[in-house]
Amino acid sequence: MDAEIIAVGSELLLGQIVNTNAKFLSQQFAEMGVNVFYHTVVGDNESRLTLALETAESRANLIVFTGGLGPTKDDLTKETISSHLGRKLVSDEEALDSIKAYFSKTGAEMTENNKKQALILEGSEVLPNDHGMAPGMVTTIKGITYMLLPGPPKEMEPMFLSYGFDSIMKKLETHERIESKVLRFFGIGESLLETKIEDLLEKQANPTIAPLAGDGEVTLRITAKDSSREKCEAMIAEVETEIISRVGEYYYGSNETSLIKELVKELTVRNLTIAGAESLTGGMFQEQLTSIPGAGKIFKGGIVSYTNDTKANLLKISDKTIDEYGVVSGQCAIEMAENVRDLLDADVGISFTGVAGPDEQEGMPVGTVFIGMAFRNQESKAERLNLSGSRAQNRIRSVKYGCHYLLRQLIE
Amino acid sequence: MDAEIIAVGSELLLGQIVNTNAKFLSQQFAEMGVNVFYHTVVGDNESRLTLALETAESRANLIVFTGGLGPTKDDLTKETISSHLGRKLVSDEEALDSIKAYFSKTGAEMTENNKKQALILEGSEVLPNDHGMAPGMVTTIKGITYMLLPGPPKEMEPMFLSYGFDSIMKKLETHERIESKVLRFFGIGESLLETKIEDLLEKQANPTIAPLAGDGEVTLRITAKDSSREKCEAMIAEVETEIISRVGEYYYGSNETSLIKELVKELTVRNLTIAGAESLTGGMFQEQLTSIPGAGKIFKGGIVSYTNDTKANLLKISDKTIDEYGVVSGQCAIEMAENVRDLLDADVGISFTGVAGPDEQEGMPVGTVFIGMAFRNQESKAERLNLSGSRAQNRIRSVKYGCHYLLRQLIE
Repeated sequence: MDAEIIAVGSELLLGQIVNTNAKFLSQQFAEMGVNVFYHTVVGDNESRLTLALETAESRANLIVFTGGLGPTKDDLTKETISSHLGRKLVSDEEALDSIKAYFSKTGAEMTENNKKQALILEGSEVLPNDHGMAPGMVTTIKGITYMLLPGPPKEMEPMFLSYGFDSIMKKLETHERIESKVLRFFGIGESLLETKIEDLLEKQANPTIAPLAGDGEVTLRITAKDSSREKCEAMIAEVETEIISRVGEYYYGSNETSLIKELVKELTVRNLTIAGAESLTGGMFQEQLTSIPGAGKIFKGGIVSYTNDTKANLLKISDKTIDEYGVVSGQCAIEMAENVRDLLDADVGISFTGVAGPDEQEGMPVGTVFIGMAFRNQESKAERLNLSGSRAQNRIRSVKYGCHYLLRQLIE
Repeated sequence: MDAEIIAVGSELLLGQIVNTNAKFLSQQFAEMGVNVFYHTVVGDNESRLTLALETAESRANLIVFTGGLGPTKDDLTKETISSHLGRKLVSDEEALDSIKAYFSKTGAEMTENNKKQALILEGSEVLPNDHGMAPGMVTTIKGITYMLLPGPPKEMEPMFLSYGFDSIMKKLETHERIESKVLRFFGIGESLLETKIEDLLEKQANPTIAPLAGDGEVTLRITAKDSSREKCEAMIAEVETEIISRVGEYYYGSNETSLIKELVKELTVRNLTIAGAESLTGGMFQEQLTSIPGAGKIFKGGIVSYTNDTKANLLKISDKTIDEYGVVSGQCAIEMAENVRDLLDADVGISFTGVAGPDEQEGMPVGTVFIGMAFRNQESKAERLNLSGSRAQNRIRSVKYGCHYLLRQLIE
């Protein structure tokens, strides 16, 4: 089954909202083993929507629409498909009842145009809307399956998970499974990583290997097709082992994880607490740490020492260090990490000091960053980075490198 | 000029990332008065990309590509367009130099495939990449303009703003101007705001008024069309004045601003310094403050007091307060704000304490948040919030309310 996802809505073409529906549905179809070859976004315009529909019919046999099922005049997805396919729109009693129920529940006043929402393509399977009024529907005509879903993600997503998913699965003749696994790397560039596994990329067929780079990280998505999950997973494991044997030192986790999640995990299993002292990152490391539920077990807190005063008075950095080496130095980074560790009575201290930009500081160029790490009963150390991004990128990369270095030291 | 935006990347079709590039570019084109009638997403596949290209040529005269300009084998946007248009790919010296410079700066290892990134369509205008390696390009052939941009938003967005925007503007024949202004509101719901300006929304034509809600904020985009910028701006000003007269108390800024930017601005003009003490927000307020260049003038730093120990030992919260009222209380919020202000010798202290979730705390339900504000020579106060979102939403909303309350107090 080859799918195309068509999002209908002028607000998308005006850039007022982003098409998260296509992402959600694509993930779902990837797991079902349905190929998605195109996403299309078109406005609330009958002729252009018809054109998009004809284009999709020429290249897909599953066409999924999101949006345009609302009560207003510019919601015309159903009407357009109805006239294109020559299928009447009929009122669905159950849908109408649930719309009436919705209004009596909320106490709002039901208007004539709300009845329009109960109209469905004659002969189609109705997908109930448990979080709104417009029902979804599925119908297959001349070998092409048309699925209509509402636009609001909070209605569309539960509708697809509760009803749409199974409705599609029933139509899949093939029993072929698709499994994939994402390997995550940090500290190596995309092109260098690819050079190291070039032969694997060359001869890839099944499983496939898809590299993706972003925010200083590189991921490899390994996707296998076979008759059973077990067979797929075995095929993936074989490729994975080969890749890890070559670039394992940069590998930090698989699938839905992140450097910060891995850090919280590794600190938790070792029952270690951490404290942070941040200058250029301004609290980003601590904010990310606390974005993870349960971080309270390992995170004591920390200090954002954005001025030299704060470094001296609150974080107790010695004048000697500030005068002799400056605040953008390995010495200062180490003292920050040790002091925040001791001030908060944590097992590990980490610090970030450097020049985020746009202006240089202490004669140090933008992108110069020192990360200090202080473990109890171990020699503290500082790592130097020379980053070349924007202010925002330099801050983000610094936090990622901090997690990367700490993870290395924890695992060693 | 009718535009179509084609995003190239299998990761989009697999649902690994969302197509924010289409949103960004659509916003830009809306402001330029260029109609965007379609977005298309296609994978890293030559034949399907060619098909998408042919479809776009049949319905648009400006085709903008994002993605597929990278160094790897599955980056084939340039190559596909080159063979489709019969235009050679030639190496651009400047681009090659900047790629070499990029590597020498970062000290990373340059590989053969990086040279591929310096290839451009012969005769095209090069759009320099100030945040990465792959240059963009623009060329017009047989009345159709093709623009190629890199995929990573951190590279694509500044490239378009610095070079792409003007390159398109030059090609626009029309002399009709489109100007728009976004008014930003916080502390009022979308539906309440709409009721207060219902009559204006009813009779809107030129200028148009488009409401949009998200993350607890509501914006109104006013868009006017006329022969000159001045005329547009006068039309916008009239509508704006009327709106502000009705809901001005919730208005905080216009166009590309944010609550945090306004806060930095207001503190700067008043020459006031600030310090923060954060529990549930874990440093998010301070991280956002320091994301703004120049925050160093007004931000001293702060404390992330994630445990009761840290509140007691580092932030000097009295045992009495913690025992009698608990850490999730207005009393604790006020003491946090006053203490961090005094510890860092700032003019203003702000604090965030509460229950982000998923679990309740001290018998307080998830979403209970206290924000403390302590100005010198003024009575300190705390505001209570009862939020109903996820852990992440509750943290973000808390920071926004903190900025909102501080701004109110500064302006009064």
